[in-house]
Amino acid sequence: MERRRVIGWAARDSSGLLSPYSFTLRETGPEDVVFKVLYCGMDHTDLHQMRNEIHMTNYPLVPGHEVVGEVVELGSEVRKFRVKDNVGVGCIVGSCGECLSCKSNIEQYCNNIILTYNGTYKDGRSTQGGFSSLMVVDQKFVVRIPEKLAPEQAAPLLCAGVTAYSPLKQFKGSKKALNAGILGLGGVGHLGVLIAKAMGHHVTVISSSDKKRVEALEHLGADAFLVSTNAAEMERAANSLDYILDTVPAVHPLQSYLPLLKVEGQLILVGVAPQPLHFSSVDLILGKKMISGSFIGSMEETQEILEFWAEKGLTSMVEVVKMNYVNKAFERMERNDVRYRFVLDVAGSNLE
Amino acid sequence: MERRRVIGWAARDSSGLLSPYSFTLRETGPEDVVFKVLYCGMDHTDLHQMRNEIHMTNYPLVPGHEVVGEVVELGSEVRKFRVKDNVGVGCIVGSCGECLSCKSNIEQYCNNIILTYNGTYKDGRSTQGGFSSLMVVDQKFVVRIPEKLAPEQAAPLLCAGVTAYSPLKQFKGSKKALNAGILGLGGVGHLGVLIAKAMGHHVTVISSSDKKRVEALEHLGADAFLVSTNAAEMERAANSLDYILDTVPAVHPLQSYLPLLKVEGQLILVGVAPQPLHFSSVDLILGKKMISGSFIGSMEETQEILEFWAEKGLTSMVEVVKMNYVNKAFERMERNDVRYRFVLDVAGSNLE
Repeated sequence: MERRRVIGWAARDSSGLLSPYSFTLRETGPEDVVFKVLYCGMDHTDLHQMRNEIHMTNYPLVPGHEVVGEVVELGSEVRKFRVKDNVGVGCIVGSCGECLSCKSNIEQYCNNIILTYNGTYKDGRSTQGGFSSLMVVDQKFVVRIPEKLAPEQAAPLLCAGVTAYSPLKQFKGSKKALNAGILGLGGVGHLGVLIAKAMGHHVTVISSSDKKRVEALEHLGADAFLVSTNAAEMERAANSLDYILDTVPAVHPLQSYLPLLKVEGQLILVGVAPQPLHFSSVDLILGKKMISGSFIGSMEETQEILEFWAEKGLTSMVEVVKMNYVNKAFERMERNDVRYRFVLDVAGSNLE
Repeated sequence: MERRRVIGWAARDSSGLLSPYSFTLRETGPEDVVFKVLYCGMDHTDLHQMRNEIHMTNYPLVPGHEVVGEVVELGSEVRKFRVKDNVGVGCIVGSCGECLSCKSNIEQYCNNIILTYNGTYKDGRSTQGGFSSLMVVDQKFVVRIPEKLAPEQAAPLLCAGVTAYSPLKQFKGSKKALNAGILGLGGVGHLGVLIAKAMGHHVTVISSSDKKRVEALEHLGADAFLVSTNAAEMERAANSLDYILDTVPAVHPLQSYLPLLKVEGQLILVGVAPQPLHFSSVDLILGKKMISGSFIGSMEETQEILEFWAEKGLTSMVEVVKMNYVNKAFERMERNDVRYRFVLDVAGSNLE
């Protein structure tokens, strides 16, 4: 079988600027799904990786880990997809398959995950992401896009959406009327609001300023808005939340937020802060509270959030752009000038 | 009904020195249990309160919140005890009775708990603890001491024991063979080792030095001993523990301990540190780990740990002393010169 020649947009150095790059896909193995990329979400992680700010970036780097595509070829052992199906790929394209996490279907916690880009296959080849005409991925790491769901709508669910869904899933079907807090209103936070609302929770968006009040209440349908710098408002909200989904990827004062939790409440971190976070042990002890962490979601949960989205008829708020706008879009993302997620129309762009 | 005149040992000022003090009990109300104090455990909190190091101490202060006694009188509405029964009282003698915590039988998390000493009853009177000939306590906050359990053995369970038991209870009856870590080998930690062993867990004691190795392995029956300053040993133990019961009441580096936890592992804080604790969010996120807190235990759990102790035939390691040794015993406790808990033989002491 001939290797397919594809064209993607790649960063060449730590400037992070993307430009056309031609490379070959591996041969299609028996477990592989080959798909034409339709849309791909854009994430802060992409930017950090493109600039070599996280860990050793191998250039050229084709980013993109919220990939929706249409199947063009299937390996001989693949039964669960057919040609022309819409499929999705998220942050990881491989794991060891042997460890407890893999065997428990929480393969995202495997110590040997292969990232969708800037990762390395067992044969030493680098992985390349979804800012590309075509991809080949092991079927275990490919999900089905429900027919009711538009592909550009599905894209942000594959990383941001499942990152919010995975920890919130524990509250699904709770008999209590739960009070949710969402801290940070970016890609993950806005989907967190929509998911928590769809689960029937009373949702409070917590923000450091009043700027996002209208967005939170009117565009996203949150029930309440709390300004963390307003001491009187924070005091009134003490002991009121069952959980806080904390999406802030920066150092922030947990001592301001833990008192908002009820007894047995949970603050869930999903954004990695570059320096240590501080908290007062008494805030956890006197109230049986907890701080937990959660990392993206499993393949099973990725499929679940897609079904959940279709079933509930939810709409992610995305701005669809062409590839020739990608560098500009990253610039805007960096100044938080996007409501709430850029999605690249890869199939509709001239990639040359 | 005449008020009973009793004699206790009280601190008079922030020197914390205890000396005889005569006071009166309230009249026995319909829900009250009056008992002669037999034994009372000695705790670090006593020392801090005696010295006015926690919150405003009202002098004279009679400490003691691990109290075992023999019933001498019952209020008209008390049905669950009889005169001559052995009973116990822990850290709290009242709560609001109305809030969600009270109604969920986790009254220790009520915002209006009345502490066993240095607390205030609704009528404005101060509470006084168990270093005293006699006590009167609302039956809701009195537990039964099982017949098989010696009263001096029961004493440390009423605060230290239930503090370890309450968070470990969630693991009782787990079908998995659990790996436990116990951090800190004082009053709570040593009982934590015994409880975790009795639940069938594989118990690793984690300590900053090698000094307690023999104690941990030979006296307490731990399965393994880990020195936290030994980087190679810590590295080998990474991802091995299902939970860590962290009893250290001081600032300590959580970044050393969180990597010891398996995926979905839990570090449970039960000792209040006077300054903030630090952790790296990535340690929680990449492993779905959590840091939780737990405060003493409920009355229901206090009764449970007593039954558990009797049923499993466990032995707390205590040093029984008379009241005229109490100041000396606190001095020794302060230098950690006790294995592992002083228990005052109140009934066997001359209190005058």
